[in-house]
Amino acid sequence: MPTFRPRIESSVLIVIDEQPGVMKAIHESERVHRRSLFLARLATLLHVPILASEQVPDKLGHTDPTLWGLLSFPAIAKTTFGCCESADFIKAFRDCKRSEAILIGIESHICVSQTALGLLDLNVRVAVCPDAISARTMEMHKIGMERMRDAGVAPIHSEAVAYEWIGTSEHSRFREAVQLVKEFSAS
Amino acid sequence: MPTFRPRIESSVLIVIDEQPGVMKAIHESERVHRRSLFLARLATLLHVPILASEQVPDKLGHTDPTLWGLLSFPAIAKTTFGCCESADFIKAFRDCKRSEAILIGIESHICVSQTALGLLDLNVRVAVCPDAISARTMEMHKIGMERMRDAGVAPIHSEAVAYEWIGTSEHSRFREAVQLVKEFSAS
Amino acid sequence: MPTFRPRIESSVLIVIDEQPGVMKAIHESERVHRRSLFLARLATLLHVPILASEQVPDKLGHTDPTLWGLLSFPAIAKTTFGCCESADFIKAFRDCKRSEAILIGIESHICVSQTALGLLDLNVRVAVCPDAISARTMEMHKIGMERMRDAGVAPIHSEAVAYEWIGTSEHSRFREAVQLVKEFSAS
Amino acid sequence: MPTFRPRIESSVLIVIDEQPGVMKAIHESERVHRRSLFLARLATLLHVPILASEQVPDKLGHTDPTLWGLLSFPAIAKTTFGCCESADFIKAFRDCKRSEAILIGIESHICVSQTALGLLDLNVRVAVCPDAISARTMEMHKIGMERMRDAGVAPIHSEAVAYEWIGTSEHSRFREAVQLVKEFSAS
Repeated sequence: MPTFRPRIESSVLIVIDEQPGVMKAIHESERVHRRSLFLARLATLLHVPILASEQVPDKLGHTDPTLWGLLSFPAIAKTTFGCCESADFIKAFRDCKRSEAILIGIESHICVSQTALGLLDLNVRVAVCPDAISARTMEMHKIGMERMRDAGVAPIHSEAVAYEWIGTSEHSRFREAVQLVKEFSAS
Repeated sequence: MPTFRPRIESSVLIVIDEQPGVMKAIHESERVHRRSLFLARLATLLHVPILASEQVPDKLGHTDPTLWGLLSFPAIAKTTFGCCESADFIKAFRDCKRSEAILIGIESHICVSQTALGLLDLNVRVAVCPDAISARTMEMHKIGMERMRDAGVAPIHSEAVAYEWIGTSEHSRFREAVQLVKEFSAS
Repeated sequence: MPTFRPRIESSVLIVIDEQPGVMKAIHESERVHRRSLFLARLATLLHVPILASEQVPDKLGHTDPTLWGLLSFPAIAKTTFGCCESADFIKAFRDCKRSEAILIGIESHICVSQTALGLLDLNVRVAVCPDAISARTMEMHKIGMERMRDAGVAPIHSEAVAYEWIGTSEHSRFREAVQLVKEFSAS
Repeated sequence: MPTFRPRIESSVLIVIDEQPGVMKAIHESERVHRRSLFLARLATLLHVPILASEQVPDKLGHTDPTLWGLLSFPAIAKTTFGCCESADFIKAFRDCKRSEAILIGIESHICVSQTALGLLDLNVRVAVCPDAISARTMEMHKIGMERMRDAGVAPIHSEAVAYEWIGTSEHSRFREAVQLVKEFSAS
């Protein structure tokens, strides 16, 4: 089997539970939001579909408006922690007809991990961007990352996803992509 | 083979050697005890069976009373470092008729590692909660974790185990579980 | 399959994008350059072929002159981020008739990662020298390393590559190799 | 295949190049020596055979005398960096008729790594004690450990090896073993 190298025509970007009411308790939430916005803006530029989940939005509110505006489909309300236990999510994902998922959002060890492993069980290739996910504590994030990596989830920096998607400096959107890299520079 | 996602109906929680007389020499023993109590309280709430081992209790004393009170079965005295070399333990585990073990306790590199690998050899799926295990030194803990992960033991934060077990915010015990998360908040 | 132990007669050293105009933005670029020069000098001594890629050299300039002078073949200009998407690179690599690639250069998470994974897909055995690669930030480097290791790329210190190539203190070039180790001592 | 759990009757302890003339340049050499002495003393107590290699002893001197006195066989002089490229070493190892090797000594990324991978290629099960190995720099040690772990070498703390060998507090040598643990306490 070839190595996992995300492609524009195969990828879906999945934004997990980036609701301000939940994000406020998250370790380095500003960084997660900034890197998520970077990747969502790039996905929009390249026509990579973007799905988002929201944990009990009636109570916890909706996805951050700056991200919300970029979604390809309405955000999917869920009560389960893993997205794949939501029939609405599975339908939305299947409708995209894509075989690769790039995950960002919160929390690394709960909803992100459960979604990543759930997608693996559906034979989807899964990457997670460590710079665009987090948890309430650094320790929870770290253990979540270890569990996902051990299970077969690829850790790919959001900027590395960008350069896999673009592929070459001759891509028609290269200049705009580089502009986004600068605008949302990673620490 | 599907990824390892612990389920209420498949899991046994195994508390290894959390005897105060041994715990006092352990790095961050208070944290280990607090996180263990969290997971044991949750297991009790969800009717996940809890086993405990005790290393030579005649000499080293019994499991911490706050944990002891939550055990589903009498603590199993052992002289071997790995639980699976104890016929009593194997019988108790088999009587639970479960295929997944969640390990907490001490020490990461000795009794926890030997038990984890012993269970793998019995085709049990094994997770260890890094926040609820430790050793006399941080270095011993770290090397023990590396050995277990390399051998196929899943590192899952105790809080992540909790949210796998519960699965959804519509679970009848969700509120109580969240209350426990708050009461025993992880650092 | 035997473990991966680089051999003089099987290896190609690949220097990725070490152009001063790009290097100046890199975390610890001086260290990357010094360790690259060490390995390139040793490869020259041992007649290990050295290839180099250059990202859009018309705009970003050529490989550092101290490295440039050691190349076995003209540096290969590319516009793709991964070397294996360049037909010129593939031809140059195939002409070497080698089955093992040792990668150094920049950036860990972009061009180095894409090249490493591209070579794995060609059934080449791939090592990367963590002391001789870097990215704009330490975090990007670290995540790039994790992705490559998880995909099957061997992390081998440049000095360890040297001692694998030499093999024995009776090698006719041993004294010169040790001299290079001292001259470019790693921190 | 069962997990790797070292046993007295299957193990050989291999002390790599612990010659004072080389050790003096090593990061935390005192710790390496102390932990090596611990494991060698325990191996002696339990009749686990101990082999040692020496890199060009005519020039670099012999193994530390405190360790030398515990060897089961004369130290094996070598000029190759990996022990398995030495016919004398292979003969000595084969004469032990053991299937498991526990490696300690220096340097993590050169002679220890090459020996570990060489033994894996001979279908020997290999562990390395991270607390009893080192290199000239911490970085070299770390990268050497990563390479070995990725190749299938088990990282096992020397104290954990001890407790695997002993197995139970009812072992006839348990008290002496615990005494050694205390005498050479790890930091």
